[in-house]
Amino acid sequence: MTSEARAGTSRPPQVLRGMRDFLPQQMLLRQEIIERFQTVFERYGFEPIDTPLLEYYEVLAGKYGEEGEKLMYHFQDHGGREVGLRYDLTVPLARFVAAHRHELTFPFKRYHIGPVFRAERPQRGRYRQFWQCDVDTVGTRSMLADAEVVSIWIEALASVNLPNVVIQLNHRQLLQALATHAGVAAEQALTVYRAIDKLEKIGPEGVREEMLRHGIAEAAAQAVLDLVQLRGEPGPVLAEVRARLTGDPQAEAAVSDLLELLRYLDLLGVDPRRYTLNLALARGLDYYTGPVFEAVVEEPAIGSLGGAGRYDGLIGMFLGEEIPATGGSLGLERIVEVVQELQLLHVPTTVSQALVTVFDDQHWGVALRLTQQLRAGGINAEVYLGERRDLRRQIQYADRKGIPVVLFCGPDELARGMVTVRELTTGIQHQVPEAELAATLRRLLAARPQ
Amino acid sequence: MTSEARAGTSRPPQVLRGMRDFLPQQMLLRQEIIERFQTVFERYGFEPIDTPLLEYYEVLAGKYGEEGEKLMYHFQDHGGREVGLRYDLTVPLARFVAAHRHELTFPFKRYHIGPVFRAERPQRGRYRQFWQCDVDTVGTRSMLADAEVVSIWIEALASVNLPNVVIQLNHRQLLQALATHAGVAAEQALTVYRAIDKLEKIGPEGVREEMLRHGIAEAAAQAVLDLVQLRGEPGPVLAEVRARLTGDPQAEAAVSDLLELLRYLDLLGVDPRRYTLNLALARGLDYYTGPVFEAVVEEPAIGSLGGAGRYDGLIGMFLGEEIPATGGSLGLERIVEVVQELQLLHVPTTVSQALVTVFDDQHWGVALRLTQQLRAGGINAEVYLGERRDLRRQIQYADRKGIPVVLFCGPDELARGMVTVRELTTGIQHQVPEAELAATLRRLLAARPQ
Repeated sequence: MTSEARAGTSRPPQVLRGMRDFLPQQMLLRQEIIERFQTVFERYGFEPIDTPLLEYYEVLAGKYGEEGEKLMYHFQDHGGREVGLRYDLTVPLARFVAAHRHELTFPFKRYHIGPVFRAERPQRGRYRQFWQCDVDTVGTRSMLADAEVVSIWIEALASVNLPNVVIQLNHRQLLQALATHAGVAAEQALTVYRAIDKLEKIGPEGVREEMLRHGIAEAAAQAVLDLVQLRGEPGPVLAEVRARLTGDPQAEAAVSDLLELLRYLDLLGVDPRRYTLNLALARGLDYYTGPVFEAVVEEPAIGSLGGAGRYDGLIGMFLGEEIPATGGSLGLERIVEVVQELQLLHVPTTVSQALVTVFDDQHWGVALRLTQQLRAGGINAEVYLGERRDLRRQIQYADRKGIPVVLFCGPDELARGMVTVRELTTGIQHQVPEAELAATLRRLLAARPQ
Repeated sequence: MTSEARAGTSRPPQVLRGMRDFLPQQMLLRQEIIERFQTVFERYGFEPIDTPLLEYYEVLAGKYGEEGEKLMYHFQDHGGREVGLRYDLTVPLARFVAAHRHELTFPFKRYHIGPVFRAERPQRGRYRQFWQCDVDTVGTRSMLADAEVVSIWIEALASVNLPNVVIQLNHRQLLQALATHAGVAAEQALTVYRAIDKLEKIGPEGVREEMLRHGIAEAAAQAVLDLVQLRGEPGPVLAEVRARLTGDPQAEAAVSDLLELLRYLDLLGVDPRRYTLNLALARGLDYYTGPVFEAVVEEPAIGSLGGAGRYDGLIGMFLGEEIPATGGSLGLERIVEVVQELQLLHVPTTVSQALVTVFDDQHWGVALRLTQQLRAGGINAEVYLGERRDLRRQIQYADRKGIPVVLFCGPDELARGMVTVRELTTGIQHQVPEAELAATLRRLLAARPQ
């Protein structure tokens, strides 16, 4: 290695702003949550796929609105190609489906769990590399596919013990019909969605001002605001919407989609306290065309855990042939933080279940034999690998890591043909014959309080 | 979305050269292999960590030799920082340890499984994004840590049924002593390693020519070639090396490391047919300082599945304080290809275990109720989500995906209070009461031939 390089890297090492390392304990929690999500996703028949972290820039460009364009990591690769780091898992899915349509069985149900990149201004809970957990169904207009996403989300979030999750539902075309009905020009519809989407954050006055500032007429802004603030049971609210927008075919279609979605939720046995209509829900991404959802926890004030929606036009952008699709994305980072803060899951601090101590350099034979026996018996076991190996140091190592069981096999134990097994949290010791070691440890470990 | 963007992406979608999508069936195999590796790694007490895919360029620069410098993806991010996509998992580990040394318990054993990036010329089995599966122990000079890596590799590769794996062992300082002894100047040592490393590929004559071309003297080149071609049992070979390099302290240290490593392998009960000395093994990376290994399958001619070694200087480059470390990297892509080609693992084609058919639109209630019941009973179940739902189409869907069991709940079944359960491969049908459905399916699925 060159001496310049040596000099160049001698200052304290850093991780890039907005990016993070994960220590073992954090990783064990992340892995536990991901596994639980995977189990639920697979329960519904969703299959795993993966796509590259880099895509041609033009695959990603123009799909995420102005904001997305600004936040996307892109650069020229070695061959002078414009490439971008993936910004979400939905556009890569659309590209994937277009590329592999002849190899897939439709409707195609897939899940995808992995990192995406956005050069956001780093702040609490917002990172430049973060993981999304997506489920999508491609190739059907059936509202049952949308209903399944709602049901999966509720189960997935329940599987990590998140309380009071509510899925808010709306429909992009309802927003559009609403905007049209109120007299907003078609090319200004996105402006209206973006303004409305901030209702929770900036209030009705803020939304009105934003709309006026973008040239929406006063009366139109008021009509939009009146409608999106309708609250109550989904049935009566949709009836009211239908009455106000009577005769508008887009509104009719949207209301009938939502009624069908609600009917499927009912048939799937989804608890009606777990979903609600929110006519002000727009979702930021440009590619949605039908129902949109958001998973929200209001009490405690956790906010949004994920967004979803139907995007019947996106795959067609790659294919010239429309393939309908719907699905959504749970944000892993926020979920991990909440699970950690509220201590919703118990996860061990280490994978190790047992440390076999070495009495002295004459006892390597027995120590390594026992360790390999435990491993063969399905127990995660270690010997202390440090060079200075007094017993105190070895026990301290187990203690610091939270390894629950420590084994001793010194001259006394060898003379008696036994191994001493100490449970570190209680200090209780057992004398166990070597042949019964793995079975005894399995029993002890299974009996530990969680 | 803008119309320019629409136009820009209307040509056929592509994945970047040297990068790949993974379809569900491929992903299920990848996940199975990764899970088996994880199980073995955790069995030895290695803990999972993760690091960002992007690092400051200067963290990565100067660690991988000329070749690495050329193949690294790097660019300027939004803040004008020079950043690089990670090139392996070892340098990020060194940076991680330096950054988190006060939060870790040493010796620190970690595994890390994830993608890395190299802008290689794409060719069979070589990709620009590929996964590595690393285990490393940081903070000890004990050869037991190196021996554990050998033992883990043998177990991990056995866990995916790879036959005839042999771990080739050598020592960087032995190579260096050898070079010095033969009269090669210190600054030319890396040239010698790189030439020797190609012995298998270009033969002794090729290696000699490469050394001469780089200015190594004729006699030195010959002495190096004579030594690295010694073959046989590790014990006698090391005795011969010791005799030839007698009095060279570096050679003495290297031989004594290797003897200690061999002793630990013996105490760990590792099958001696699974490892061998190969004095010509250099390993390309610049940061190795002690023992180096490579996992090789010669019959069938599979070649290298992973490389490892001790790198006692690398972490010190970030810290100004030396922290010894050893570990290695199994290459997932090659392993997946071999497991697939030789059909070493049986993995289902789909996660779905059952399709509940819908008789007609009047039967959604029962179909969705049964589906949810199966899911609650731990069975991965689907209903067909397509819009045109004749029974033929639904069965074809199950058949194409390889879903093993199809359920029918039409008017006949409802009248009898039964569900028809058909095993698709055999065509055998069972009449099952609704209450016993999940239990019956679990039994049927468990009894299927693998």
